[in-house]
Amino acid sequence: MMQQPGRLIGLGVGPGDPELITLKALRLLRESPVVAYFVAKGKKGNAFGIIEGHLQEAQTLLPLVYPVTTEALPAPLSYEQVISDFYDEASLAVAAHLDAGRDVAVICEGDPFFYGSYMYLHDRLAERYDAQVIPGVCSMLGGASVLGAPLVYRNQSLSVLSGVLPHDELKRRLADADAAVIMKLGRNFHKVRQVLEELGLAGRALYVERATMANQKIVPLDEVEPMSSPYFSLIIVPGERWQG
Amino acid sequence: MMQQPGRLIGLGVGPGDPELITLKALRLLRESPVVAYFVAKGKKGNAFGIIEGHLQEAQTLLPLVYPVTTEALPAPLSYEQVISDFYDEASLAVAAHLDAGRDVAVICEGDPFFYGSYMYLHDRLAERYDAQVIPGVCSMLGGASVLGAPLVYRNQSLSVLSGVLPHDELKRRLADADAAVIMKLGRNFHKVRQVLEELGLAGRALYVERATMANQKIVPLDEVEPMSSPYFSLIIVPGERWQG
Repeated sequence: MMQQPGRLIGLGVGPGDPELITLKALRLLRESPVVAYFVAKGKKGNAFGIIEGHLQEAQTLLPLVYPVTTEALPAPLSYEQVISDFYDEASLAVAAHLDAGRDVAVICEGDPFFYGSYMYLHDRLAERYDAQVIPGVCSMLGGASVLGAPLVYRNQSLSVLSGVLPHDELKRRLADADAAVIMKLGRNFHKVRQVLEELGLAGRALYVERATMANQKIVPLDEVEPMSSPYFSLIIVPGERWQG
Repeated sequence: MMQQPGRLIGLGVGPGDPELITLKALRLLRESPVVAYFVAKGKKGNAFGIIEGHLQEAQTLLPLVYPVTTEALPAPLSYEQVISDFYDEASLAVAAHLDAGRDVAVICEGDPFFYGSYMYLHDRLAERYDAQVIPGVCSMLGGASVLGAPLVYRNQSLSVLSGVLPHDELKRRLADADAAVIMKLGRNFHKVRQVLEELGLAGRALYVERATMANQKIVPLDEVEPMSSPYFSLIIVPGERWQG
């Protein structure tokens, strides 16, 4: 008899505070025989840290360990190829459990479809397997909440931008935004702050590291040490207050 | 002895599915002696519908009923003024409970700081009272999840736009977006679809009504009846798949 394949579940676990997981994500996490998570070599992983208190002994853990690489590699290697191969292999590891009839919950910090690594598994597997995505509280909304910063009013547009964007591109997009969130700061912080200053937006911008996590840090923008800004930091430029 | 004032709590309850509330929001909801919610006259309110199963008898309900108005009013009346007066009065009603030492949870569909009416209370009260915001799963991520649509990859920019924007402004912003979400469709649907067609984006765009709610409806964009598109519908133009 053909084995009924398991379900692929992209499971958003929220921005960091373990209490910011949804009831649905928690239920499906507990019901999943296999829990997969992306993690850097030698680390525990943020998503794993958020949910580990809920794991039960009978559950199988499937860590998907990112390859150690940088974006600049000697030819014929390319970052894109190394990462693509990694996601291919990760998909095979997940598919092996699905083929054996076991549901696999892939836990994702924040939301699975909002810059999540889960997307690369979804793109490879969702056509062949039953896939379900449980949305989560994304990092930018976790950030806005701890900063006490209403993000967008009424008919304002919100631009979510990556700090990786080149100076001029970032400046052009920020100048056109009613409200903005800049993610992926890290070593891009210095450039981003400079752009905000050039646009006269530095006074309106708010900065937070690891929002809602136990080691969260809120620092005035002009006091941030550029070299120490972690990847999980973000800047919010809230929309102008609507007087409604 | 001075009464210690209550806490103002902006409580995100998620996009519609009652199971998409966070553990934290549910805990604070249960702990709050007063539960406030915005609602249209004669309606129950979406946020209220999401949480009513969790309410206890001892809790006081504080409905904040929107005035019946339109955006076009004869002078000297103005929509802005009517709405502003309403939020002033709503703030007074909430403040009365806070002054009496009672915490007030203002429940918000989606996330409180993402286009939520709570923002107007927050702007009026957060300087005088202890205010705490519990972020929620926002409607656009609820939408992406039920559409099975990875939203933004890697360093793509996401533009969140209001369907209320004029045709040319909407077109300019959409043309510049790597990925986009268009909210507040309703009677703006026809214009929005036209803009997407003009830009050659209609084939990539996905449409959903009341995502994650019991009466959710997913309809191909070209089959949507413009006059029947509800306010709680949205269009997602997902980012181009990154081959990583």
